[in-house]
Amino acid sequence: MLTSRSVLRALALAATLVLSTPLGAQSAAQRAAAAKPAAATYKPEFGTMWTFDAPPIDYWRRTYGFAPDQKWLDHVRLASVRLPNCSASFVSSKGLVMTNHHCGRECTASSSPPDSNYIQTGFAARTLADEKKCAGLYVDQLQSIQNVTDRVRGAITGKTPGEQAAQRSAIISQIQTECNQQTQLNCQVVSLYQGGIYSVYRYRRFNDIRLVMAPEGDIAFFGGDPDNFTYPRYDLDLTLLRVYENGQPYTPTDYLKWSAAGANENDLVFVVGNPGSTGRLNTIAQMEYLRDVGYPASLAAYKRLLATYSTLEQTDTSAARRYQNDVFGVANSQKAVTGYRAGLLDTAAMAKKRAFEQDLRARIAADPALRAQYGGTWDAIAAAQRELGTFSPQLRYYGFGGGSQLLQLGAGLVRVAAFVNAPDSARLPQYRGQGLTNIKNQLLAPAPIDTAFERLAIAAQLRAAQSELPANDPFLRVALAGQTPEARAAALVRGTRIADQAVRQQLIQGGQAAIESSTDPIIVLARAIDPLNRQQLARANALNAIITANSEKIGQAMFAAYGTTLPPDATFTLRISDGVVKSFPSNGTIAPFKTTFYGLYERSAAFDDKFPFKLPQRWVARKANLNLSTPYNFVSTNDIIGGNSGSPVINKNAEVVGLVFDSNIEGVSNRFIFSSEVGRTVSVHSAGIVEALRKMYDGARIADELQGR
Amino acid sequence: MLTSRSVLRALALAATLVLSTPLGAQSAAQRAAAAKPAAATYKPEFGTMWTFDAPPIDYWRRTYGFAPDQKWLDHVRLASVRLPNCSASFVSSKGLVMTNHHCGRECTASSSPPDSNYIQTGFAARTLADEKKCAGLYVDQLQSIQNVTDRVRGAITGKTPGEQAAQRSAIISQIQTECNQQTQLNCQVVSLYQGGIYSVYRYRRFNDIRLVMAPEGDIAFFGGDPDNFTYPRYDLDLTLLRVYENGQPYTPTDYLKWSAAGANENDLVFVVGNPGSTGRLNTIAQMEYLRDVGYPASLAAYKRLLATYSTLEQTDTSAARRYQNDVFGVANSQKAVTGYRAGLLDTAAMAKKRAFEQDLRARIAADPALRAQYGGTWDAIAAAQRELGTFSPQLRYYGFGGGSQLLQLGAGLVRVAAFVNAPDSARLPQYRGQGLTNIKNQLLAPAPIDTAFERLAIAAQLRAAQSELPANDPFLRVALAGQTPEARAAALVRGTRIADQAVRQQLIQGGQAAIESSTDPIIVLARAIDPLNRQQLARANALNAIITANSEKIGQAMFAAYGTTLPPDATFTLRISDGVVKSFPSNGTIAPFKTTFYGLYERSAAFDDKFPFKLPQRWVARKANLNLSTPYNFVSTNDIIGGNSGSPVINKNAEVVGLVFDSNIEGVSNRFIFSSEVGRTVSVHSAGIVEALRKMYDGARIADELQGR
Repeated sequence: MLTSRSVLRALALAATLVLSTPLGAQSAAQRAAAAKPAAATYKPEFGTMWTFDAPPIDYWRRTYGFAPDQKWLDHVRLASVRLPNCSASFVSSKGLVMTNHHCGRECTASSSPPDSNYIQTGFAARTLADEKKCAGLYVDQLQSIQNVTDRVRGAITGKTPGEQAAQRSAIISQIQTECNQQTQLNCQVVSLYQGGIYSVYRYRRFNDIRLVMAPEGDIAFFGGDPDNFTYPRYDLDLTLLRVYENGQPYTPTDYLKWSAAGANENDLVFVVGNPGSTGRLNTIAQMEYLRDVGYPASLAAYKRLLATYSTLEQTDTSAARRYQNDVFGVANSQKAVTGYRAGLLDTAAMAKKRAFEQDLRARIAADPALRAQYGGTWDAIAAAQRELGTFSPQLRYYGFGGGSQLLQLGAGLVRVAAFVNAPDSARLPQYRGQGLTNIKNQLLAPAPIDTAFERLAIAAQLRAAQSELPANDPFLRVALAGQTPEARAAALVRGTRIADQAVRQQLIQGGQAAIESSTDPIIVLARAIDPLNRQQLARANALNAIITANSEKIGQAMFAAYGTTLPPDATFTLRISDGVVKSFPSNGTIAPFKTTFYGLYERSAAFDDKFPFKLPQRWVARKANLNLSTPYNFVSTNDIIGGNSGSPVINKNAEVVGLVFDSNIEGVSNRFIFSSEVGRTVSVHSAGIVEALRKMYDGARIADELQGR
Repeated sequence: MLTSRSVLRALALAATLVLSTPLGAQSAAQRAAAAKPAAATYKPEFGTMWTFDAPPIDYWRRTYGFAPDQKWLDHVRLASVRLPNCSASFVSSKGLVMTNHHCGRECTASSSPPDSNYIQTGFAARTLADEKKCAGLYVDQLQSIQNVTDRVRGAITGKTPGEQAAQRSAIISQIQTECNQQTQLNCQVVSLYQGGIYSVYRYRRFNDIRLVMAPEGDIAFFGGDPDNFTYPRYDLDLTLLRVYENGQPYTPTDYLKWSAAGANENDLVFVVGNPGSTGRLNTIAQMEYLRDVGYPASLAAYKRLLATYSTLEQTDTSAARRYQNDVFGVANSQKAVTGYRAGLLDTAAMAKKRAFEQDLRARIAADPALRAQYGGTWDAIAAAQRELGTFSPQLRYYGFGGGSQLLQLGAGLVRVAAFVNAPDSARLPQYRGQGLTNIKNQLLAPAPIDTAFERLAIAAQLRAAQSELPANDPFLRVALAGQTPEARAAALVRGTRIADQAVRQQLIQGGQAAIESSTDPIIVLARAIDPLNRQQLARANALNAIITANSEKIGQAMFAAYGTTLPPDATFTLRISDGVVKSFPSNGTIAPFKTTFYGLYERSAAFDDKFPFKLPQRWVARKANLNLSTPYNFVSTNDIIGGNSGSPVINKNAEVVGLVFDSNIEGVSNRFIFSSEVGRTVSVHSAGIVEALRKMYDGARIADELQGR
């Protein structure tokens, strides 16, 4: 599933890309372009996440014999909307908006009446009046895109990276403010190609959103964690919302009509949505770091955390239910990162990427001016990544990861005291400006501590530190204090008082003196580790700054060389991706392009209707109503990633044939190098949506609206 | 699917194992055993194909808390029978025998009435009188096993390998003949552990076999080649036969009762059947040769052949049907060999195997006497394999492989002429004794030549030779005669007259003179290549003899060291394998332990009921009769391979819970190194069999008999 979790991570990543731009890059980059032969050839490994201001019309015409005109593109763009973490689309003349169940989950839960939970029971409004307000939810509709690269670059005149960053930040802020005032739209400057282009995206925001229909969570997410990120699949991952304006259903000029035929094998289809983050412009050195250092560390941490939950579940029967969401979140990350890493472990794909990089480097090396500007970038990144790898365990363990809330509270208390009287420049970045106050408030908020979890999580983290850090590492001496990880964890949890809100308040009020005189074992520990941790963080930040600055140069060179024949990395902005509805080789045989409702009942029966393959009561009781051979889910070769959840799948006539909700496990590895050989986008089929609405949810009113009847 | 094709190959392989035994091996082997610590520990990588005279009772007791007594074992052995290429079992008091559809296929086809084809229509005899005689079919029931190792070894007194081979052959023949006469049973001497043990297996043969029930081929082999060797699966791969004696149903003392519950998750189950061939005692050098040389060559050849069929199918609409069986045969081999090779490419599994070999070698190297006897064996095999690798392309291309019947006829004609007046010792092995006459008769039999196929197959073979052989290879000069592969193939097929039976007759009658004076282009070619080919064959035979002799020594040493805690390689003789009914991780999620009839309809609907996912008419028309959630197929961790087709799966009460018919794709790699992590045996569920008989085939009579009603 393409959850918002991965989108948030994506946004965090994308944010780091908007940084300083070296002077003179543009003209050197243009020289790089001139040094290349006409580069109009589509490069499959960079995928098909096209921006609406640079649609690859020629490539589409050549490949599919289809070249949409500007009217088609405008219509599709305006019919598409963005939720805070997901994608969606207008699908009726009365403002019906289609997205995924997991995108509308918060609205579905919060709009439930006090005695019921729509996540469990499902919901379908019988009338307009029954539609439930989604507090706080909004949708954004992309009105226009404008390239502001020259204006951003022109404003950056400083010499140092610090000056440049401040100037860039200021001009972006200025462009956004001016745009907001002039247009009354929500304007956002986006950095594409790692700084190769800056564009302002202008959105119209709709704030009155209501819940029209959501199925039961058990059918929306049928198959749960095991089936997550896989196909064949049997999920009704659907939420229907409606946009209201002045208390009435909004009537959009542009909405997607419903296809009569739905998706069929070999059909050309487009996915229109907001992919969150990809890493296809990364250098080989960056990919190798993630493959060999970053991702293995994350995977080991997920494994420890899942083992902790599993232990808790064995000793406490209610724990399974209590930790369900946490376990799912970690398992989802584990599956996603395993998939990302699989792409990096694919030697054939990496060889292709390496050949591309070597070719580009050779071209740059061949021109003295280009060599002077860009020649050192790849090696600089590689050296920084290598050095980062040398203290990766220290960086991780000194930072008190591993899920313990107590250790995080302790570290926060120590730092607030240290930073409160320091100038901004002496603070860690997240403590600068308003950051310090925000963190202080977080530390003072109620924080119920799960002591059973804390004991296990801290012990697991200490055991892992013991196995990864050298025996004489100062962290181990202080953190273990001569005890076994288990005994030490128990002593810390038993001995600390910082679980008490009032104790934290006293420590903050007491300032540095209170921290220094504290004998609370967690404060003592955090106090001892903090200087070590800050030293490592400073070193890591300096190296990451080198990587960012050089990545930007590479992005500019690549954009200059290949232009828009190579789509930019995902930035949670609107893209259109072409693809074909297509089965794929899987498990020694063929995974069919579609599944049907028969398969839903098969998978439930094969697992004896046990969770997460348990059917909602409605789906048992009303089974006979269904035409079981109706298409239910299907796959296509479109290029998607987290953030694309809820994207419409449309045919050449801009009609809805499906609703994107996931990628197959083979497609997860597309984060770095795209391939449509076996990677697939997984969608709910339009026919399955209508069949379920009519036969399961008494939803003729809604189905008729979708089908324009 | 575990077809007879792989069994035949298995038998051919097993036959090479029955060769000379070096003198003194026994005592040195016993020393090897003494040099090892008590080796009672089960070694999972060697699998669980146990013989009935050495059941691992202690291991079963430890692992499952179940230790069958001798009565249970005798009952199960006598209830199990062997078909010419498959396994089967008695499943009723009136001699009903259960096996796979693909094992009874010939009987089902040949017993069809002239105007119908039971393979297409299915068949279920309404009464005893309706049951159809299977001409030529027999089943063998294993009565007893006797170890004759000492007698075989005692008879071998010669000094040279040739003398030893003749003596061994003679004593085995003598033991078999004596046994046949004394017992009136069919006696076969089997070499286990590559010559570590010789045992005589005594079979009672039943010759009056009749067809009781066979479903349509399309439901027995639903999913066809794509789903072959995979799971989840939806096949009714069943044939029911009946053994008659004196015109009446035979009433066996021992038959398997039908389980009321069928297979359930985590059940302990046994598979009783006749696995054809495994290579688990192979050395690392032998495995690496197959991985790097042998299998890649086979896979390339399959690929060429399939491409040829595919080209023919594109130009000729009737070709698809005509080549269907051939294509399936090649595709099946391709899938199997790909799977075998996958096991060899699994670095973790190979590391385990390598560690085992290194440990055994170290133990042998540590004892001077053992070192003298066995020390050189592994290196001798490795050197021979290495040398075989150096002329592998020559051996393959000089032999005229690639599917051309014309080239094979040409080679045969040239050789018959050369060998007809030569002494046996100067002939290639298959031309010795009765061999020459058999080959002569084959050459004179009608051979309809498919010229379109010949042109393409010869051209493909010549192209491949061109890319693999050095440019100055003498074969290329003669075979291409300065033309392109395509032109040369066309010229050969156009120019030759040996497609004509009368022309072949004249060439044979004309002897060496006729061959030497022939200007037929294929005879000219075969004449030029034959000396080259015989030279390479002689070299290969000498190297293979070294490998065989040393493999035998290793087998003996291993048997002596580990005894029967390590099951012998498969030899198409009766084995009992333990396992557990168990789901497995697959495709990023879980493959359930069972499928149901829902899944059959899902898979058909998902492929729009297109071949090979097309349902027989009966299964469309009578769908409403079925309880769709009835278990249909299931998986377990038992150890099987080609030859096990038709084996019963039984529970602790020796009741039938299923019918083995295949392995999943992950299990195919178990040929060399066994693992039950993801490899699974695929069986038809006993409940699915009864449901289909009753609801689809009006087979209450048969179902009642199975269920003992």
